Amino acid sequence: MNFRLIFRVMGFVLRCEAGLLALPALVSAVYGEWDMFLVFLGVIAFSLLASGLMLLKKPSSMHLQAREGFFAVAMTWIVLACVGAFPFYFSGYFQGYIDCVFEAMSGFTTTGSTILTEVESLPKGILFWRSFTHWVGGMGILVFVLGIMPNMDPSSIQLMKAESPGPAPGKLVPKLKDTARLLYTIYFVMTAVQILLLCMVGMPFYDSVIHAMGTAGTGGFSSRNLSVGAYNNVPAEMIIAVFMLLFGVNFNIYYMTLRRQWNGIKENEELRWYLIVVGTSILLIMWNILPMCSSVWEAFRYSSFQVSSIITTTGYGTADFNLWPSLSRNILVVLMIVGACAGSTGGGIKVSRLIILFKSLKREISRVLHPNLVKRVKMEGRAISDEIVRNTLVFFFAYILIVVFSILLVSLDGYDLVTSATSVFATISNIGPGLELVGPVGNFSMFSGFAKLVLTFCMLAGRLEIFPVLIVFSPRAWRRDF
Amino acid sequence: MNFRLIFRVMGFVLRCEAGLLALPALVSAVYGEWDMFLVFLGVIAFSLLASGLMLLKKPSSMHLQAREGFFAVAMTWIVLACVGAFPFYFSGYFQGYIDCVFEAMSGFTTTGSTILTEVESLPKGILFWRSFTHWVGGMGILVFVLGIMPNMDPSSIQLMKAESPGPAPGKLVPKLKDTARLLYTIYFVMTAVQILLLCMVGMPFYDSVIHAMGTAGTGGFSSRNLSVGAYNNVPAEMIIAVFMLLFGVNFNIYYMTLRRQWNGIKENEELRWYLIVVGTSILLIMWNILPMCSSVWEAFRYSSFQVSSIITTTGYGTADFNLWPSLSRNILVVLMIVGACAGSTGGGIKVSRLIILFKSLKREISRVLHPNLVKRVKMEGRAISDEIVRNTLVFFFAYILIVVFSILLVSLDGYDLVTSATSVFATISNIGPGLELVGPVGNFSMFSGFAKLVLTFCMLAGRLEIFPVLIVFSPRAWRRDF
Repeated sequence: MNFRLIFRVMGFVLRCEAGLLALPALVSAVYGEWDMFLVFLGVIAFSLLASGLMLLKKPSSMHLQAREGFFAVAMTWIVLACVGAFPFYFSGYFQGYIDCVFEAMSGFTTTGSTILTEVESLPKGILFWRSFTHWVGGMGILVFVLGIMPNMDPSSIQLMKAESPGPAPGKLVPKLKDTARLLYTIYFVMTAVQILLLCMVGMPFYDSVIHAMGTAGTGGFSSRNLSVGAYNNVPAEMIIAVFMLLFGVNFNIYYMTLRRQWNGIKENEELRWYLIVVGTSILLIMWNILPMCSSVWEAFRYSSFQVSSIITTTGYGTADFNLWPSLSRNILVVLMIVGACAGSTGGGIKVSRLIILFKSLKREISRVLHPNLVKRVKMEGRAISDEIVRNTLVFFFAYILIVVFSILLVSLDGYDLVTSATSVFATISNIGPGLELVGPVGNFSMFSGFAKLVLTFCMLAGRLEIFPVLIVFSPRAWRRDF
Repeated sequence: MNFRLIFRVMGFVLRCEAGLLALPALVSAVYGEWDMFLVFLGVIAFSLLASGLMLLKKPSSMHLQAREGFFAVAMTWIVLACVGAFPFYFSGYFQGYIDCVFEAMSGFTTTGSTILTEVESLPKGILFWRSFTHWVGGMGILVFVLGIMPNMDPSSIQLMKAESPGPAPGKLVPKLKDTARLLYTIYFVMTAVQILLLCMVGMPFYDSVIHAMGTAGTGGFSSRNLSVGAYNNVPAEMIIAVFMLLFGVNFNIYYMTLRRQWNGIKENEELRWYLIVVGTSILLIMWNILPMCSSVWEAFRYSSFQVSSIITTTGYGTADFNLWPSLSRNILVVLMIVGACAGSTGGGIKVSRLIILFKSLKREISRVLHPNLVKRVKMEGRAISDEIVRNTLVFFFAYILIVVFSILLVSLDGYDLVTSATSVFATISNIGPGLELVGPVGNFSMFSGFAKLVLTFCMLAGRLEIFPVLIVFSPRAWRRDF
C-alpha cells in the first residue's frame, strides 16, 4: 500500500471539507448565530491544519492501484464523518461524540437516520450543515475533489470507481476531470430548479434549500420534526416526490438527454424496471391503504410519496407508514433493499444489480434445461462480463451477511426484531427511517453507543457498496509490503 | 422432455407409497382403529391403481437427462404429498384438503409445521403415518426407490442428484443402487438405536418410534401437544438432542467411519464449522437466557436442545423460545437459515454452501488486493469447480428471492412481520416452528388457504433446494419438443 498517496487523497478531501464548511459558517452569520459561526471557523481551522500536515510529504509515485483506491475512499469517508461531526459536537445540542459521528455519517452517506428527538429548536447553521452533508455525499466527495484537484494521475479513476454506486461505474466523457465536473453541473442545476419550484409553491427559501439538498442527495434530513408532512402542502409534496424519483435515476440518463440519445434512454433496462417497480408498488399500496384513506386521491398522495421516498432511499415522510397494513409495510421493506438505480445518488442494492441477479438465475435454470448451450448474461443487448456477474452475486451475499450480523449485534440492545432488523436495513440502504421504534415518527436516539457504531458502519458499508469497507477491515490490507 | 419416462418414475414412487402405507394400516389394526384401517386400505388401493395406469406405457428411452431428473423429482414430490394427504382427509380430523396437503408436505419435506391445534386426540395410525412421512422424506423417497427399482439406467443418478441436499451430491460407492441401499441401512440402524435408547430411559415404545422417526428425518412432528417438553424427561431430551445433531451430519461421514477413514473426518471443513456454529450458539444463548433460568445447567439444557433442534431444522421444542430475549431469538432465526450439513436429512442453506459463499467473498476481496493472482475456492484442500461456486451464489440469491416474495404473499393475511417472515423461514428451511403466532406453542392453522399453499410451496422449494421447483414452474420445461 502506498500510504503516502492515500494520505495525500485524504489531505485534499479535508481541505475541501474546510471549504465546504465555509457555507454553513456563512449561514450562521446571516442568521446572526455568532456562537455557531465561531464553531464553524474553529473546525475550518482544524481541517486546514490537519490537511496541511497530511500534504507535507509528497508520495514517490502518484499511481493508484485498485486496492489503494478502495482503501483511500473508505478511510477518507471515515475521516470526513469524524471531522464533520465536530460542529455538531461543539454546538452542544448532541449527547456525545458517538451521536455526532452517527449524525454526520448519516448525513454524508445520505442515510438520514437521526438521533435527534427534536430538530426545530436547533440553530439554522447546524441544520444547514446537516443537510449540506447530504448534498455533498450524494454525488460523492471524491468525485467533487476529482473535479478540482490539480495534476491528477489517470489512475485516480480508481477513486471514482470505489465511490460511485453500481456494478460497473465508469466515465461519461474521456477525461475524468470533465466527467466529474459534468456530473456536478447536472446535479447543481437540478437542485437549483427544485429550490426554485419549492419557493414558487410557498415553501420558505431556507426550508426549500434544506429539502432540495436532502432530495438531491436522497438523504432525508428535514428542518421540521414532522418531515415534509409538516407543511401539509400538496404541490410541495408532489415536487419533492418527483425530484426524489429523478435523483434516483442513473445520471448517465441525463447526460444522454443532453446529447439527445433518445434510443439509449428507451432501451435502458434499469430505467424501465425502476419505473415498473415504482408504479406497481404505488398501485399495490394504494389498494392496500384505501380503507384508511378518505379518497382514492389521498391514497395516491400518501402511497406515491412514501414509495418514491423509500425506493430512492431518501426517507422523507408525509405519513406514518408504520401504522399501515402488513402488506404495505412489507412492500416498503422490500423497496428498502431494492434501492435506486446505479449511478444515482440513491442507495440500496440497486435495480441494475437485481436485474443482473435475476438474469443469472434465469441462466442457471436454462443451463439445466440446455446443458450444452452457453448463454451469457446480457443487458441492453450487450453481454456482461462474467467478472461483473460474479462480483454482483458475491456482493449480494456480502450485503445479506452484513445485514444478518448487524441485526444480531443491534439486537443485543433488546429491542424487538422488527426494530432491530429495519434499523439495519434503513442504515445499510441509506434510507433513514425503518419500522416500529425507528419508524417515520421515531428516531435512533434510544440505541446504545455500541449499536449506534454498528449502524454507522452499516451506513458506510451501504454508501461505499461494501467492498471498500471490507478491505479496510481486512488485516492484510494494512501490511506495508503490499 | 421424455414425459413417459417421468410418468414411469412417478408410477414407481406411487407403488412404493402404497407399500409404505401398509405400515400405518398395520398400526391402525394393532390399536384396533378399524375405521382408519379401512381408510389406509382405500388409499393403498387407489395408489396401486394410479401407479398401474402410469406404468402402462413403456417409454422408448430409459435415459434421463438432468432436466428430466429435476422435473421428475419435483412432480413426484407433489404427487407424493397429494396422495399422502388422503389418509388425513378421510380421517375427518382435518379442516379441508389444503390443510391435509400442507400437513403431508410438511411431513415428507421434514418440515414439521402443523395446522393441528391439538394432536393428542388423533388416532395412533394417523399420527404414525404423519411421522413416518418424516422418516421417508428425510433420506428421500427417490433414494429409496433407486435402492429397490429393477433395471435402472445409470442416468438415474440425476434423480438422486435432484433429491439429495447439498451443493454437489454424489455416489458413495460405484453402483448407484448400492449407494442408495447403504444410505438407507445406516439410516435405519441409527433410527433403531435411537428407539432403543428412548425406550430404555422410560419413553413408551409408540412415542419412542414417533420421536425417533421425527428426529431421523429432522422433521419435528410429535405425538404430544407440548412436543418433547411434555415428557419432562431429561435423559430423553439429551438423547434426542444428540441424535438430532447426528442426523444433521453429512452421511458420508458415517460411511467414512465405517471404512475407518479418520483423516477424512478430521479434515472435513463442513463438520468442523457445523460443530463450531452449534457450540457458539449454545454458549451465546446460555449466557443470554441465564437470568430466566434457575441454574447454569437448566440454561444449558434448554439452550442445547433448542439449538440442536433449530440448526438441524428438526423443530422439536422443550422451551418456548418465543419468550426468550431478542438476541437468542435472532440467533435462532439465523440458525434457521444456516441449516444442517449437506448430505444430511436436515434443511436450510447448508453449512457447506455457506463455507463456499464465505470463501468466494474472501476470494473477491483478494482479487482487489492482488488483481494478478488467480485464486480458486478450495475445500478440504481441493479446488471447487467454478460451476459449483456460481451455482451456490445463484442458489443463495434464489433462496432469498423466494423468501422475500413468499413473505409478501403471506403478509396478505395481515399478521405481523415477524409471524409472516418466520413462517416463511420455518417452512423453506424445513424447520417447523417460527416466532410469534407460529412459535413453538403456536401452529399454522390461522393462515388462509392461499398462505398455506404459499408455505407448502416453500417447504417443497426448501427440501428440493429450489432449482427443481423453479424448473417445474418454468413454462419452457413443459414444451413437448424439449
